[in-house]
Order: sequence, then structure tokens, then C-alpha cells
Amino acid sequence: MTSKPATYLDYNATAPIRPEARDAVLRAFELAGNPSSVHAAGRAARDVVETARKAVGELVGVVAGSVTFVSGGTEANVLAIDSAVASGVKRIVVSAIEHDAVVETAAASGVSVSVLPVDADGVADLSKLSELLAGEGRTLVCLMLANNETGVIQPVAQASAIVRAADGLLHVDAVQAAGKIAIDFSALGADTLALSAHKIGGPQGVGALVAGTRANVVRRQHGGGQERGRRAGTENVAGIAGFGAAAVAALRDLPQAADQGIWRDALAQRVKDAGGVVLGEGAARLPQTLCLAAEGFASQVQVMNLDLAEVMVSAGSACSSGKVKASRVVEAMGRSDLAPFALRVSGGWASTEADWIVCGDAWLAAWKRIGARRREVA
Amino acid sequence: MTSKPATYLDYNATAPIRPEARDAVLRAFELAGNPSSVHAAGRAARDVVETARKAVGELVGVVAGSVTFVSGGTEANVLAIDSAVASGVKRIVVSAIEHDAVVETAAASGVSVSVLPVDADGVADLSKLSELLAGEGRTLVCLMLANNETGVIQPVAQASAIVRAADGLLHVDAVQAAGKIAIDFSALGADTLALSAHKIGGPQGVGALVAGTRANVVRRQHGGGQERGRRAGTENVAGIAGFGAAAVAALRDLPQAADQGIWRDALAQRVKDAGGVVLGEGAARLPQTLCLAAEGFASQVQVMNLDLAEVMVSAGSACSSGKVKASRVVEAMGRSDLAPFALRVSGGWASTEADWIVCGDAWLAAWKRIGARRREVA
Repeated sequence: MTSKPATYLDYNATAPIRPEARDAVLRAFELAGNPSSVHAAGRAARDVVETARKAVGELVGVVAGSVTFVSGGTEANVLAIDSAVASGVKRIVVSAIEHDAVVETAAASGVSVSVLPVDADGVADLSKLSELLAGEGRTLVCLMLANNETGVIQPVAQASAIVRAADGLLHVDAVQAAGKIAIDFSALGADTLALSAHKIGGPQGVGALVAGTRANVVRRQHGGGQERGRRAGTENVAGIAGFGAAAVAALRDLPQAADQGIWRDALAQRVKDAGGVVLGEGAARLPQTLCLAAEGFASQVQVMNLDLAEVMVSAGSACSSGKVKASRVVEAMGRSDLAPFALRVSGGWASTEADWIVCGDAWLAAWKRIGARRREVA
Repeated sequence: MTSKPATYLDYNATAPIRPEARDAVLRAFELAGNPSSVHAAGRAARDVVETARKAVGELVGVVAGSVTFVSGGTEANVLAIDSAVASGVKRIVVSAIEHDAVVETAAASGVSVSVLPVDADGVADLSKLSELLAGEGRTLVCLMLANNETGVIQPVAQASAIVRAADGLLHVDAVQAAGKIAIDFSALGADTLALSAHKIGGPQGVGALVAGTRANVVRRQHGGGQERGRRAGTENVAGIAGFGAAAVAALRDLPQAADQGIWRDALAQRVKDAGGVVLGEGAARLPQTLCLAAEGFASQVQVMNLDLAEVMVSAGSACSSGKVKASRVVEAMGRSDLAPFALRVSGGWASTEADWIVCGDAWLAAWKRIGARRREVA
């Protein structure tokens, strides 16, 4: 059993590894084989990889052959975008709330990039999509399934209808949605979809790109013939095994994942009663993500106060090397006034009601101290 | 303790994980943090990554700041070459025995590529290097430290003197040399150097690019600011921890690694006494690699016969998805006649004298059966 820190509510940054995933990693370590080797150890390692491929496919409703293993969610997003560009797309549309991996890869791609805005709840505004798709040649649209900071679920299937009508391609970053809500690749109408193991309780350093029949995966890392020529490099057998086991567990646990919503909403109510704001509340959201803000209570001060109380949460995305900066996602929602004050609380597979209550207690205590200090100064 | 298959002599494909590395992975799993998170779990994960960075640096004699963690040896080689091209090199010279990751990345780079030949022992012929470096602008030379199939050690320091005199850059693929012989980055005169964790007894799916002051690492995977902006994506904390622990153990065990040479040479003698040939025998080699050939005994038949005897070895590089094809390395040595008959036997940290003897017994028994059958047919 994995011991986890007292109150860890930062699953959107990384989830503690599930016991099933940990055990699968350990079993894979015993095999000591390279899946490309033809001998017994190699064949055993190959079996592990292919079993995991099937499990990861099942998490999103695709066959194993649609799954390419990569080194993580970032590489999955990068491979999707680079593949579309290599296949000849003429422009890229990214929603205003995409992850840096998508935004920066699009910016570096060499083709023109336009931004699809979001509304006040952080939902992509599809009324603008058709015009952004117009023009010579094919367009790649990148719309995430659920936002990493607010948990707001995006209208991907509706976007797909518009993208398909214009003969475009649709890439869906499902890194944050996976394991938290059910995902059906076909129903979403995605052409490619990115997954990350460590967000669903698998190990860090492994992810997958799911690709449908309309998309080509064009390899960007050359070398050996692994992953059917789509991605060179010895497979991360143990990591892939852990990913597969986490996918099985996450799919099994989907019904319970909804429980987090009740506990999350109870915390949200306490925050609002104390004068705080909940972002994206008017939209469908992941059940375990809460993005709150309280004017005058800087994100960084919130994170540090909660950390002192042994409650771990984050200010926006974690992916900026320890830097806490104003949330680009909150700004895109037209709430630049709140961006410096946003906080993300995110639960997951091992979170309990007590975790959410302890977090609320710590937040309210810190918020009262700050308020008292401000009144003293005033 | 890791159990390993009865007779595993395919360390150059992948090494069984060292107990120290396995334990480090498990300890890292307990932390459950994203190194970019500012809270306690994040800081603990960051410490693990930075401790490992120092250990990996020490394996090759550099400070931690020179080490960029990536997803494996392939990505390290790709990042080195792409970085050099992004920094403006006008042409690439690759030795005739480089790994596919180097050969194919150079071929896809868009700059002209020329090949530095090797002699009959598989040693790069430096007499040709100066003329290949001539011309407008800077040249990148890729010369591996030790070959994956023959174990032949390359004259990297001598090559570096020639490369520096021409103001070129030198990339050294040290994936197979690390942990088998001592490596001093500065003494080699390398500008960049690639390492892979799983070849030294760490986990698969993690590697490192070491870069000196003359080389820029230009990020090719965009997204978050990880690895000081050189490589985006949440760090593979557990994998990196295992890599660090394997590096410490490999450095400690270097004196014993030489023992393999005695056992390897005893097997070589048995092969030669039976009419076989040892490739690269006239050159300095890694102590644990043996590349042999016996005319009429096809590589694939050797691998399968040994596999039936529960001895795991390989035909050339493992990186071609289970395909056994004639060795490009042996062909480059001018022995196309022997290429279809080459076999690679490679030991490592857990190999014993008995492993080498059992392998020799199995090989000789199979070779005798083949010979008897050929005599019957004749």
C-alpha cells in the first residue's frame, strides 16, 4: 500500500501511484527483457506492453492498435501536433485554455495559429470555430476535454461536428479528464487524443497518443522500429505496465470518482460563504477539481499557508518549475481581476471526505488571518 | 532482490534492474509529488531528481548542471543532434557503426550527412576525419564510445582533437559504454554525451543528455519549463531516482566489471577452437561484450537454439521489433560474409562465470548439431 501525505489535494499536478500500478511495475522489473528481443525474456516484456496497450485503449474505447506509447502527456500532445503539421495541415486553432504543451508546440510549428476564446465559465465558444476553420487546406483544432485548472469540460463532440464539416482534424488533450469521467474516443469525434499515466495513478514518464483512422502518427523520434515505427526507443516496459494497471483501476473506479463532486461542492460552499468565488461553476466540470479565488488572498500566499498546514494544493498548472504566476486560464475567462488570487484544489482515487474538510478548515483559517491583518492595516 | 532468468547474457539489449535502482523507484513512488509543485511533496520530488542528477553527472565526471534528463538513450541522441542542427551546424559526420537513433536522426535532419568508415576491427578510421570536417560552417561529428554489437571502444579523445581543430562539435553516444568502463566527459573532449538508465541496471524509459559549455541544448519537446527549459514534461521522478541509484552502483562496481572480460575471453576461446570467429578482437573492447560468428550458423538459428536452452543472447542490436537482420556493423567492418552469422553475447552486473560457461556449452552443442546435419546433407 502506498502511504500518501496527510492531505494531498493536488491530483491534477500528479496523482499518488495506485497500488495496482506499483505492483505491475514491480512485476515488470522481474522480467528483465527488451520487448524487441526474440528470446523468452523479450517475449515476456512484449506481452506486458501489449496487455497494457489493450487496457489503455479500453479506458477510452479504442482497440490496442490505436495506442502509441510515449514518454508522457507532453510528448503525446507534441506528437499529435507535429504529426498533423507533417501531414500537411495549414493552420492550427487552439482554445484559449490549452496546456502549455499544446500552446507552445503550436507556436513553434511554423504554421499560423489562432485562438478560440472561452466564455466566462471557461467553455470554448464554438460560435467562432467555423470562421477560424475557413481557408485553403486543412486545419488542426486543439480542444482539451477538461481543463487542468478549472476542471471545466469542453464541448468536444460539438466541436468535432464543426471540424469534420470543414474537413479539419481534431486533437483532444484528455490528460486531465482520463480516469475522472468516462471517455469514448469515437463519440467525442476526436482524431487524436493524449493521455498521461501519472494523472490516473500510474507512474510518471509514460503516456499515450491515441489516433483514429483519419490521423497519421508521423514519428518525430528516430531510431529503432519500436511502436510500429511511430516512436523509436526501447519501450518503458515497467512504466507501461503501470500505466495499463492504472487504466484498468481507473475505469473500474469511475463510478466512485463522482463522489468527489459532493465533497468538492461542500468545500466550494464554505469558500463562497466566506466571500470567495468559484470559477467555472456554471459549466459541467470534472467532479474532483475546484478552482477558487478570494480577492486579496494571493495564490502564492494561499499555497504556502496551506502547505504550512500540511495541505497540498496548487496555484494553476504545476508545470512551470516552481514558479507561481497569474493563471492564464482565469485570464482567458475574462477574470484578470481574479487571476492573481486563483487556487486549484484537486482530489483523486485516494482522496477522502476528510481531506476536503481538512483543506477547507485550513483555507478558512488562513483566509481569516489574512482578513484580520488587512483590517489592522486599514 | 531481483530474480533474473537462468542465463541472461543480453545486457546490451537491456540489463536486469539493480536492487538499488528498484528500491529507489519504490521510495520515489511513496513521495507522490510533482517536482514543479511548491508544496512539501513537490519539494521532496525535486530533491530526488536533483540528487539523481548529481549521481548521473558523477558517473561521467560532470557537475549536475550539465545533465538533462530525457526519456531514454534514443531521445538523448536525438536531442543532441537536433540541438546541434538548431544551433547551425552545416553537416553531420556519423561513424559507420552508430546506432539507428543517430543514423536516422542525422538522415532526417535536413543537413548533409557523411559516413566515417571503420577498419576490420570496427575502429573508426580517423585518417578520413579531417577531410570530412572541411567546408563552410560547423560540422557535428557523432562517434559512439563503444559499439553495441562488438563492444569495440572508439578513439573518441583522438577524434575530439581533430574535431576541435576544425571548430566542430562532437557528440558521443555512451549508452553502451556507461557502467562498463570509466568515462570522463572532459578527457573524452565530448561536447554532448548520451546515456541510458536501463543499460546500466536502471529502469527503462529514462536517459540523460550531458552537455558541455560549447554545446547548446535546444529544446525539441515544448510545454512546461522543466529541465531548465531544455525538455518539457513532468519529470519521470521514480525513473530518474532509479537511474541515479544505478549510476552510483555502476560507478562503485566498475572494478568488478572487468572480471567479465576473463569469462568472456574463455568463451571466445571455446568458440574459436570450434571454428568460429570473434569480431573486433584486435581492438580494445568493453569487457562484457562478445561478437562471434560461425559460417553457416545463421544468427537467427543461433538465437533460437540458445533460447531453447534457456540462454538469452541476441543477433546484433535488439532495436528492430523482433526482426533479426544481418548486422550493419559487421558489414561496415568489411565482413559482409560473416554478417548473417553474427551473434552478440553480453554480460553485466549480475552475470557470473557460470553464465558464460552455460552459454558456451549451449552454443557448442547447437553448433555441433548444425555441423552434423550439414555433414549429413553433404
